[in-house]
Amino acid sequence: MNPQTLESLIRGRIPVADFMQLHVRAVQPDHVELTAPLEPNRNVHGTLFGGSGTAIALVAAWSLVYARMQDEGLDAPLVVARQTTHYFKPVTGAVSARATFETAQTWADFTQRLAQGQRARAGVVVELAQVPGEVAARVEALFAAVPR
Amino acid sequence: MNPQTLESLIRGRIPVADFMQLHVRAVQPDHVELTAPLEPNRNVHGTLFGGSGTAIALVAAWSLVYARMQDEGLDAPLVVARQTTHYFKPVTGAVSARATFETAQTWADFTQRLAQGQRARAGVVVELAQVPGEVAARVEALFAAVPR
Repeated sequence: MNPQTLESLIRGRIPVADFMQLHVRAVQPDHVELTAPLEPNRNVHGTLFGGSGTAIALVAAWSLVYARMQDEGLDAPLVVARQTTHYFKPVTGAVSARATFETAQTWADFTQRLAQGQRARAGVVVELAQVPGEVAARVEALFAAVPR
Repeated sequence: MNPQTLESLIRGRIPVADFMQLHVRAVQPDHVELTAPLEPNRNVHGTLFGGSGTAIALVAAWSLVYARMQDEGLDAPLVVARQTTHYFKPVTGAVSARATFETAQTWADFTQRLAQGQRARAGVVVELAQVPGEVAARVEALFAAVPR
């Protein structure tokens, strides 16, 4: 799946993602990178709202799993089961979210379970960073897919 | 702080909260309740987007601590440090977020630390539920305040 197709899907079907002005910068089998400007995502302090940060991270994480499923012809509803965010420092400008699989084995385990017709889970880690700058928050998310 | 004042503050200073159409239903010393319609907060499945759910919960949790600080004349920047969400079931309509302190001791400990001029932390639990309906997700959030 190319970045333009993914961005159209996200912004067309998740209204908040469109409001947050999410931009898909990269889609690869092992990572997805999104960016968003500060303005629509600010809080009462004028810095990045934590809820926006986590929402951006969840879209990045979902996109990583979803785009690879599409590319490999896998079809199963994909939903988030659990998510944790640690917020280290404020973000005072545009933000990037880079999603990668939790381990080198995550994708193989996920697809094997799906191939067996079983509920499959995939752990994804997302680093949120100011553009350009250091990591400001780390998000761990667990997604679940159930074969139809 | 009354619901109208809090709602104006939230929607005026957190653009995403305004887009999500957050409505403040109750503000009490021991709980805050917000609601939001599904439409601006849906995902690709047409159900509540997890990122919206967590964002709504974070606004409810922040509001609980912030409104009580205001009512008691406490002034210190308040930010989220950590947050975990467990998503149990899809939400297919309007959502409510009810925030309460983690324990009966949370507020007393928080204000005592602030009074001593120290960094203070407050744990908040938020239940997200379909209106009317059962709890669909549970959010735990930890907020930090540092005296000026």
